[in-house]
Amino acid sequence: MDRDFLLSTDTAQVLYHEYAASMPIVDYHCHVSPRDIYEDKRFENISQVWLSGDHYKWRIMRSNGVEERYITGEASDRDKFQRFAECLPRAIGNPMYHWCHLELKKYFGYEGILNGNTAQEVWNLTLEKLKKPDMSARGLIAGSNVAFIGTTDDPVDSLEWHEKLLADETMKTVVAPSFRPDKALNIEKAGWKEYMEALSEVSGIRIEGIDTLEAALKNRMEYFAAHGCKASDHGLDRMIYRRGERKEADAIVKKGLAGEPVSVEETEILKTSLLLFCAAQYYRLGWVMQLHYNCMRNPNTAMFDKLGPDTGFDCIGPDNGSAKLAGLLDALYKENTLPRTILYSLDSADNAFLDTLIGSFQGPEIAGKLQHGSAWWFHDNKQGMREQLISLANLSLLGNFVGMLTDSRSFLSYTRHEYFRRILCDLIGSFIENGEYPADMETAGGLVQDICYYNAMRYFRLEE
Amino acid sequence: MDRDFLLSTDTAQVLYHEYAASMPIVDYHCHVSPRDIYEDKRFENISQVWLSGDHYKWRIMRSNGVEERYITGEASDRDKFQRFAECLPRAIGNPMYHWCHLELKKYFGYEGILNGNTAQEVWNLTLEKLKKPDMSARGLIAGSNVAFIGTTDDPVDSLEWHEKLLADETMKTVVAPSFRPDKALNIEKAGWKEYMEALSEVSGIRIEGIDTLEAALKNRMEYFAAHGCKASDHGLDRMIYRRGERKEADAIVKKGLAGEPVSVEETEILKTSLLLFCAAQYYRLGWVMQLHYNCMRNPNTAMFDKLGPDTGFDCIGPDNGSAKLAGLLDALYKENTLPRTILYSLDSADNAFLDTLIGSFQGPEIAGKLQHGSAWWFHDNKQGMREQLISLANLSLLGNFVGMLTDSRSFLSYTRHEYFRRILCDLIGSFIENGEYPADMETAGGLVQDICYYNAMRYFRLEE
Amino acid sequence: MDRDFLLSTDTAQVLYHEYAASMPIVDYHCHVSPRDIYEDKRFENISQVWLSGDHYKWRIMRSNGVEERYITGEASDRDKFQRFAECLPRAIGNPMYHWCHLELKKYFGYEGILNGNTAQEVWNLTLEKLKKPDMSARGLIAGSNVAFIGTTDDPVDSLEWHEKLLADETMKTVVAPSFRPDKALNIEKAGWKEYMEALSEVSGIRIEGIDTLEAALKNRMEYFAAHGCKASDHGLDRMIYRRGERKEADAIVKKGLAGEPVSVEETEILKTSLLLFCAAQYYRLGWVMQLHYNCMRNPNTAMFDKLGPDTGFDCIGPDNGSAKLAGLLDALYKENTLPRTILYSLDSADNAFLDTLIGSFQGPEIAGKLQHGSAWWFHDNKQGMREQLISLANLSLLGNFVGMLTDSRSFLSYTRHEYFRRILCDLIGSFIENGEYPADMETAGGLVQDICYYNAMRYFRLEE
Repeated sequence: MDRDFLLSTDTAQVLYHEYAASMPIVDYHCHVSPRDIYEDKRFENISQVWLSGDHYKWRIMRSNGVEERYITGEASDRDKFQRFAECLPRAIGNPMYHWCHLELKKYFGYEGILNGNTAQEVWNLTLEKLKKPDMSARGLIAGSNVAFIGTTDDPVDSLEWHEKLLADETMKTVVAPSFRPDKALNIEKAGWKEYMEALSEVSGIRIEGIDTLEAALKNRMEYFAAHGCKASDHGLDRMIYRRGERKEADAIVKKGLAGEPVSVEETEILKTSLLLFCAAQYYRLGWVMQLHYNCMRNPNTAMFDKLGPDTGFDCIGPDNGSAKLAGLLDALYKENTLPRTILYSLDSADNAFLDTLIGSFQGPEIAGKLQHGSAWWFHDNKQGMREQLISLANLSLLGNFVGMLTDSRSFLSYTRHEYFRRILCDLIGSFIENGEYPADMETAGGLVQDICYYNAMRYFRLEE
Repeated sequence: MDRDFLLSTDTAQVLYHEYAASMPIVDYHCHVSPRDIYEDKRFENISQVWLSGDHYKWRIMRSNGVEERYITGEASDRDKFQRFAECLPRAIGNPMYHWCHLELKKYFGYEGILNGNTAQEVWNLTLEKLKKPDMSARGLIAGSNVAFIGTTDDPVDSLEWHEKLLADETMKTVVAPSFRPDKALNIEKAGWKEYMEALSEVSGIRIEGIDTLEAALKNRMEYFAAHGCKASDHGLDRMIYRRGERKEADAIVKKGLAGEPVSVEETEILKTSLLLFCAAQYYRLGWVMQLHYNCMRNPNTAMFDKLGPDTGFDCIGPDNGSAKLAGLLDALYKENTLPRTILYSLDSADNAFLDTLIGSFQGPEIAGKLQHGSAWWFHDNKQGMREQLISLANLSLLGNFVGMLTDSRSFLSYTRHEYFRRILCDLIGSFIENGEYPADMETAGGLVQDICYYNAMRYFRLEE
Repeated sequence: MDRDFLLSTDTAQVLYHEYAASMPIVDYHCHVSPRDIYEDKRFENISQVWLSGDHYKWRIMRSNGVEERYITGEASDRDKFQRFAECLPRAIGNPMYHWCHLELKKYFGYEGILNGNTAQEVWNLTLEKLKKPDMSARGLIAGSNVAFIGTTDDPVDSLEWHEKLLADETMKTVVAPSFRPDKALNIEKAGWKEYMEALSEVSGIRIEGIDTLEAALKNRMEYFAAHGCKASDHGLDRMIYRRGERKEADAIVKKGLAGEPVSVEETEILKTSLLLFCAAQYYRLGWVMQLHYNCMRNPNTAMFDKLGPDTGFDCIGPDNGSAKLAGLLDALYKENTLPRTILYSLDSADNAFLDTLIGSFQGPEIAGKLQHGSAWWFHDNKQGMREQLISLANLSLLGNFVGMLTDSRSFLSYTRHEYFRRILCDLIGSFIENGEYPADMETAGGLVQDICYYNAMRYFRLEE
């Protein structure tokens, strides 16, 4: 895992080192806490950074038969780290193996191999390093050359920390909220009624039906826009598209507010209606819409009852509903309200479909108005990234791709951009070496820089 | 992109240059116009050849944010070409990049790189070359060493141009019609009733129910057979198989003729009934049946209303109905009416399924009676072709494959056969280099020639 | 196909020759006959070994247009072998090509190429070799260094031959039955009622409802356990999960016993109920549960009527029901009755889903308690195995994989383990060569040995 890690040809090495490596990072979709950034959070030890919130690592520990008390339980940070280190040699071929060593190298200067035997050495080394000034949240961001951070925020959020960050002139990286209104759409889930209360409160608009629900959401969008928001995000377990009458949608909202049960069909009608409304607003505001779908949330209900959501028990949710995306995009296109849109499916079998679907709805507003998002979550590995890039190249224009995001909760995850860039340069390098693209490094290097940085800057209107 | 483009080993180079390159082309499924061939059409400029009918290129232009007037609108040919040339460098990894340069090299002798800067130079060069005698439709066909062209024709077509071509002794390449009765089956689509009128007229059989509809189709099949037809083709958005009683099918035809609406179920019953009828007739006539499915037509209805079908807005149509193919094949096999059949799904996730399904219905009539068609449309690229070939090799007999077709509207597309052959030789070369097949060039070269030429000649009964 | 067949790097060669090759074989799921082992069956000629029961080979012959009488019909063994040999050169890229030559080399010392011209030579050579003492069933097992054989057995089986094998001290390889109760679950299929009779008889428990059906199954499980059974196996055409009340299940059993038709819904309710019951018993007994699904059985009903099941006409059964696996695992996990479980889907599109699903239900009982089974049946080839291994590595812990099985009816199929091991070593070798894993051969070699042998020994409790 040296300087030329994953760069198998000379061309790939030139592309990476001379073009990609120096580009700033545009991390347009992640889950880091704006409060942690503002307060410049520090970390006691490597377990605090690595293991306290990373359900990818928890999954790996469970797959190696580690007991839950060493994962999310009461064992000491040192013991948890030991258990994790012992799992790592089994993770051959897993991106976690690469991510961990890239992070140890970049942030801690460790060039060795982490396993059960070296765990103590790595613990000591990282303990020392974490005391250094540049190992705080802000230090890590600055040291990673991050130009933009788009966090993920609930419409009812006060954006207090974003406000403080905006006012803080020492902060060089732009940190903006993203609008994620899942809770407002999920009428079938527990807590929706209470959420409507909160949304009424924060917007000052009493939600009593579809009109007022939309007005409240719009109110919050304006608020988010005033705080620099550039993008929204929707997490859908499966794709839906079921058009109903406006009065139906209204009746469904009223049913939900009255605490009456809603049917699957009603849920789909309301969600479709709200998705169309939101998308039209995003279009008006110039925001990017992100749709994440085909994720099976909480299949292990026993562990969900114990640990709650986002604890490493989700999985890919294969579902035959992808075709419904076409209906949604068609309706928006027809009404001239289709915003810049990035589609992410957790089922990689959808890759080619998405790459052809976006081609059916492109427009002259910007090159690559519709995007197939970077290989996501479980596909965020060498194989998954290559497949997404090759499919995109085959079926659309790779040169217009907005590239990588961390989707992470950790300030060390910026090395995922390095990982992506190495894989990208290796692929483009192979095209050139195979005679499939001219060996004109200026053009190819320019493409690499577009995909690493400039495309995202333009797409998210960050140059404005 | 030199002489050994895509041929990464010595073995691959020998296989391509010594065995594949000289084989004539059997283009058994394409969309060129028999009138253009008969009249020996000429082209004013490169935009007329490349951009006037090629929705693959339109898609790429839209994906790069080009305005519609430079695509299908009123801009000048020169301006359209300029815009297209400017898109090309973004299309890294896209087969269009390779196809364009292969065509520029083979037909125009251009060895440079097409982009915005070189567009004028290429425009001038191609303008000159297009004036040469061998750059007409017939000249291009002859220069491409094409043995057979199977066009795509509607049952109501008079086949006037095919008749003239048959009578023309100067025409060396065999040009035959293919029977594509989609309009007769699509009772759910606008225009079906009018189509029945036309079919009644041309066949001289008044269509009043299922019996007369079948009789009219049969009448046209005999007419096509008399004009050299060797194959049929069906385009199905999704696979269907729903058996009904004959009297149900009759009632559905009558409903359609009366202008009454038909349900989804009724549509499926009628289509299944007609598919079974047609297939049995194809079997009797010794024709090849081609089934194309899992294509989502016109998802962008706003642009469909503006530009009509086949304008670059279709996409892959993932659908869980592939399993129904088994019912269709089973019924035909049982009744001894299963014709030689080629299956094409636009969802590459079906590759392995199709490769195993054909194995369930093979017969002694000819080696490889059932075929999984060459990677189609969106999969007509290096990755897609390799995947189809490897899956076919793993799950069936690659040696019996009938190989490539252009599926194109352009007389320059014969280079797609070159593209395919290079990929095929590279794959077989890698098998030999890896010790997975003996380095006996006569046998391996023979397989290559079978796949490039002889298998199709036998399969479509072109040697008779 | 020399010593380093499929081993493309130095590292791969070291891993295979120094670590993998000498490991004993744990063939935990196959279809060889315990009677043949006990009686030390001998074979008259190569057709008896290769062609009498191998529907993979029949498929290939049918795909090459061979008439049925040379496949399953009355032609002579010599003629059948000739036809098969003539097909082989067409099977370029097919695993059958590699398996045949690996077997000819390992068991018969033949280093040439089998085709129509060499068939007589191979026939003669194998005829001689098959007379040698070590070419009997037991000789082949011993010569293949097999530590364990798990056969596939029906609950009503007397296990007579297993009993004799257990008592036979000259038998070094452990041969144990596996419990495959498909016939007890398939209430929708012909013969279920008669099967209930047989099960009542052998268990001594009169089956009259769900209670007695479960009791009878439990009785047979105890019997199997007493004969060394370590694993069960279920073959499901498609995945199902539909919970019903216990009294519903009882009523469904009674309906079936009364010879009344059961609906699809009822079938699913009963199967779900019995699956949950069986799994809980497997958990109690410490058995491994194997689930095989997404297989389309007997799509060619005409040939099924002629030749019966398992004659080479099955195919992949794409179905959107995989997600239902989550419900089954969730219920078992919640009730603490989830046994060690291996999941196999015949649709390779499920690979990534399965690799993430197992991660949602792992536990501390053993590292890798839930497994994604080795690439199965149609995917049991270089491409299919690589894809399964890479997906498993990316999304779970490859180091904990229980590895290969033959799933075969033949005593020559142990070379499939060699095939798998070469592919595994080549993959791990490439990780090391690419700098994706440390070049520490002891650790990497240890992983290889775990995957080839030790993991399965632990997983199936064969060390106890």
